[in-house]
Amino acid sequence: MTQSIRIVGTSAWRQGRLSAGTRAVPEETPVALTYDGTTHAVMMATPEDLEDFAIGFSLTEGIVGAPSEIETLDILDEEAGIELRIRLAEPRAAALAARRRFMAGPVGCGLCGIESLGEALRAVPEVGEGGPVTAAEISRALEAIRGEQAIHRETNAVHAAAWWQSSGGLMALREDVGRHNALDKLAGALARGATRADAGLLLLTSRVSVELVQKAAMIGAPVVVAVSAPTALAIRTAEAAGITIVAVARQDGFEVFTHPRRIAMGAAAHVDV
Amino acid sequence: MTQSIRIVGTSAWRQGRLSAGTRAVPEETPVALTYDGTTHAVMMATPEDLEDFAIGFSLTEGIVGAPSEIETLDILDEEAGIELRIRLAEPRAAALAARRRFMAGPVGCGLCGIESLGEALRAVPEVGEGGPVTAAEISRALEAIRGEQAIHRETNAVHAAAWWQSSGGLMALREDVGRHNALDKLAGALARGATRADAGLLLLTSRVSVELVQKAAMIGAPVVVAVSAPTALAIRTAEAAGITIVAVARQDGFEVFTHPRRIAMGAAAHVDV
Repeated sequence: MTQSIRIVGTSAWRQGRLSAGTRAVPEETPVALTYDGTTHAVMMATPEDLEDFAIGFSLTEGIVGAPSEIETLDILDEEAGIELRIRLAEPRAAALAARRRFMAGPVGCGLCGIESLGEALRAVPEVGEGGPVTAAEISRALEAIRGEQAIHRETNAVHAAAWWQSSGGLMALREDVGRHNALDKLAGALARGATRADAGLLLLTSRVSVELVQKAAMIGAPVVVAVSAPTALAIRTAEAAGITIVAVARQDGFEVFTHPRRIAMGAAAHVDV
Repeated sequence: MTQSIRIVGTSAWRQGRLSAGTRAVPEETPVALTYDGTTHAVMMATPEDLEDFAIGFSLTEGIVGAPSEIETLDILDEEAGIELRIRLAEPRAAALAARRRFMAGPVGCGLCGIESLGEALRAVPEVGEGGPVTAAEISRALEAIRGEQAIHRETNAVHAAAWWQSSGGLMALREDVGRHNALDKLAGALARGATRADAGLLLLTSRVSVELVQKAAMIGAPVVVAVSAPTALAIRTAEAAGITIVAVARQDGFEVFTHPRRIAMGAAAHVDV
């Protein structure tokens, strides 16, 4: 299997001086997810935790409803990348084949514009209520992930997705050059460990795009905490899915964009509204 | 047309106090690129400079070799997003139809794993030599884009791609929530203005992934200057395409990852190697 971190030579130019040096950079590998012999997607990904990735992607894209619907998973090293070769159990295999026939459209391979826009903005399930979380807990969770980002510590160039539970603390963390992939790997890790994502914090080191909210809804995560800002469409989607978005989450505080009821402020808090 | 910036209400939690406020966030819209009636891709994009986007995407993805091969472009507001409806002139229309038949594969819609991995790592053209650039010029170019990022100034949450020419300074800058989209919009803007990208700096405010290097090669840009780090695969691809990658480019300096010959250090420079 390919390594996730590479050391490369560089010429560094700092304060008018040139010096030869090295830098650790993240690897990026084309990873094809194939179902029953046909490619569903090729993602540029960090070649690590690929079993989690295959299972998580299948879940967050709605291809399966549970890991048990995956009959076999083979991870194949090819010259140009890695194939995650998935065979689905029935009736999922038939359902995907039918969906693929629809995606192929009436006139050949591919949907028309309106159909494909509808696919991109597919309806997402509403998440459960979960428990309330406090501002202090959000701070603790953000603090906890800092020490666990092994690839980021070396490269300063990958994203992480993590799951924090009030009862158990940090349950899992996954990293990837792609934000979506990190979340898919986390989703797979949680499913494989039978950890439910229905009460706790989904932590993201990135911005919040609509696709991350769609995936969060698919795993039922009630609260998403992100280091950077959400897009307007991510906010509207979270509004509809009942997800609380906490973002611009830094050392000195955070902002709540949707469904603030889940954030318990604590008795000692000053509230200016 | 949809606005690119939205003002949303937030509850901000800072230093133990909660206060209601507002924040400017970037819009994100599904944009379907359709060619001759069939969707080629749906990108989540900032709904601005969409004519540039359609032309630039078509060029960097190798669907056309020049804007003149696009016969018509219609920008259609649909309920779920925006369709960029493109009709190709012959012989490009026939070429894309043939490529689509190949992509559909022998057994229905979609390639097998090995074929799709090969598509993802398609060979890119080698770029021309361009002129040498100095460290001082790189600093000036980075300084110049700071003032021109209109959406980023409001939202602090979008990427920019810009083209700097030694003779003319900053020629064009485009912004998007997606790194790839920003570069595609820039590519389209340059092509529409008949500005060649064969001698100058392609500036990116993001990390450098392989797809950005592939797109840079397609427009013939010899030097890519990025604020963040490249991936290992981006470095290998730039090595093969003859592209100089300057990255981790900040106020205090930068690092050169590939083809350093184009970076002229200047007579007064101290060189430790």
